Amino acid sequence: MDLSLQQITDGIHPANPQSLSQARERTARLVMPPRALGRLHEIGERLCGIQGTLTPAIRRKAVLVMAADHGVVAEGISAFPQEVTGAMIQTFLAGGAGINAIARHVGAEVWVADMGIIPDLDAASLKNGNRLLVRKVGHGTRNFARGPAMTLEEARQAVLTGFELASSLIRKGVDLLGTGDMGIGNTTPSAAIGAAVTSKSLEEMVGRGTGVDDAGLSRKREAIRRGLDLNRPDPRDGLDLLAKVGGFEIGGIAGIVLAGAHHRKPVVVDGFISTAGALIAQAICPRAIDYVFAGHCSEEPGHRHMLDHLKLAPILNLGMRLGEGTGGALAMNVIEAAIKVMTEVMTFDEAGVPEK
Amino acid sequence: MDLSLQQITDGIHPANPQSLSQARERTARLVMPPRALGRLHEIGERLCGIQGTLTPAIRRKAVLVMAADHGVVAEGISAFPQEVTGAMIQTFLAGGAGINAIARHVGAEVWVADMGIIPDLDAASLKNGNRLLVRKVGHGTRNFARGPAMTLEEARQAVLTGFELASSLIRKGVDLLGTGDMGIGNTTPSAAIGAAVTSKSLEEMVGRGTGVDDAGLSRKREAIRRGLDLNRPDPRDGLDLLAKVGGFEIGGIAGIVLAGAHHRKPVVVDGFISTAGALIAQAICPRAIDYVFAGHCSEEPGHRHMLDHLKLAPILNLGMRLGEGTGGALAMNVIEAAIKVMTEVMTFDEAGVPEK
Repeated sequence: MDLSLQQITDGIHPANPQSLSQARERTARLVMPPRALGRLHEIGERLCGIQGTLTPAIRRKAVLVMAADHGVVAEGISAFPQEVTGAMIQTFLAGGAGINAIARHVGAEVWVADMGIIPDLDAASLKNGNRLLVRKVGHGTRNFARGPAMTLEEARQAVLTGFELASSLIRKGVDLLGTGDMGIGNTTPSAAIGAAVTSKSLEEMVGRGTGVDDAGLSRKREAIRRGLDLNRPDPRDGLDLLAKVGGFEIGGIAGIVLAGAHHRKPVVVDGFISTAGALIAQAICPRAIDYVFAGHCSEEPGHRHMLDHLKLAPILNLGMRLGEGTGGALAMNVIEAAIKVMTEVMTFDEAGVPEK
Repeated sequence: MDLSLQQITDGIHPANPQSLSQARERTARLVMPPRALGRLHEIGERLCGIQGTLTPAIRRKAVLVMAADHGVVAEGISAFPQEVTGAMIQTFLAGGAGINAIARHVGAEVWVADMGIIPDLDAASLKNGNRLLVRKVGHGTRNFARGPAMTLEEARQAVLTGFELASSLIRKGVDLLGTGDMGIGNTTPSAAIGAAVTSKSLEEMVGRGTGVDDAGLSRKREAIRRGLDLNRPDPRDGLDLLAKVGGFEIGGIAGIVLAGAHHRKPVVVDGFISTAGALIAQAICPRAIDYVFAGHCSEEPGHRHMLDHLKLAPILNLGMRLGEGTGGALAMNVIEAAIKVMTEVMTFDEAGVPEK
């Protein structure tokens, strides 16, 4: 029953325009000045379009944290050693990371997928190991500064794996998905994808990630420059772009976005790495972005250019730059507030309040 | 047992600097890159300072919506008729307004105070009338374009009433207070206070409120210009400023801020009108602002200048301009997330994750 990428994209349709326009009409009658709750109205209306109803609802929320390792760390582009990727997965399962605190706060489950980290973790021996979904596409990507990060077939597998994992959560009743990421070095492939898609300069697109120093930042820009020159990814071909300068978790995130769109469920993308995944999804199927909310704007400077390209305005702007899905998870709360504004606030007529 | 304003301000002390610095040390050890959750750290640390602990907690939240009418509406400065003030109070009690939906969402109670609307509502005959606290300072202010809005004694009474109402909620166990407002015309006194305190021009400080047209906007600026020229409020004297160009609900909001500071409880101020109240509180007791969080940045253009003056960065920026306490209430959720980051996220040591 596994779908091909073609079958997946054939099943993605735009959000319901009638529900969207009926929702706008309801907003105009709410007992307040026109659109006085600003972006909450826009968010609520988009959810009406996505769910095809004037009474949208969220019953079960989950963050799917996609983890992988990256060959490009050999270029000295990260402030942290590569073994942190696996160690952080164990922290996610133990419930002690940033995403755990925020997901608990908003009432979202945390699931972790090993999309291709270097070590082989034994889920059965780990605390809460049932929350670790081992779906390795490989043991880390290859160094894209020296050649393609992965094969085209691996890229396809990464996207399809993300699609299947998210579809499985949706079948269990999850109706709001958040994307998360973990992978030492992964701002580097994300910036490469962002630069290829947006045509912004590497000065604008490449930042310090978890905190490299000036020399590390130069190495990072140089590695991306070489990777793009050497591999010449086609920015309109999502799988080609992913294969040449991407990462397994980024492909998985693209698959989550496609799954949300395919099943008509909203997806909140987190920061820089998640948005690189959304760019891959957009290249594969542009109308998938109808189902995407941008959770926040990252401190990573290139993020805003990615969001501009997707024509998405971030919900939160709190100077966050952690990843893991933290910004997207926190934004889930605002999305649910927007639903309540749409469904619980009276109209002028219902309230008996005189209008202008 | 009612305190005088002097006794209130004598009892306001800065937030605990030791707890604040210990909180910063804890943040530095959390299992993430340095301060990677941005403003969530700053918010959590401030709460540690306010509560004098490394494990801050919020157990009961309330929004106190202060309502009043304004004589300056005679100048034709509002898009809505004055009877909307009283009608909206009934909508708040019925649970059908924007603030009700958002407060329910974040788990905050809504209390409404009649600080001086024109009609006399009979709380006993209204649905949920026990949530309406009738504490009229007057039946609407006088038109400040023709003379002072209220007497100095009324100004003092408004502030002390807000202090008492908030103190009463705090005695009941409320440990996070949100300020809200309702009062047709009340962006006009708020802009007058903002202009007097910040010295910004009326072009920068005065916006369309609930949506006046170009002619209404001109009348609004002219009314404020005349009010300031005629009454010459002293921006360093909070009661003088409130008496000459303020409003009863704005004084009440100032009292809420002073109560939070006096009892060492955080106060989330909402938008333009609430922040005018915070400016009055600051003029009365500058260190009270240690206890204030700015919930959001309003679409009303002068709001950012007020926030700059208070040296407060808004938590949310969602293009909201409703008032009622909506932006502050929604920000309560982010404040609680910040607490959980401070108290639930492991350190590098606890998680066993290697550092840089």
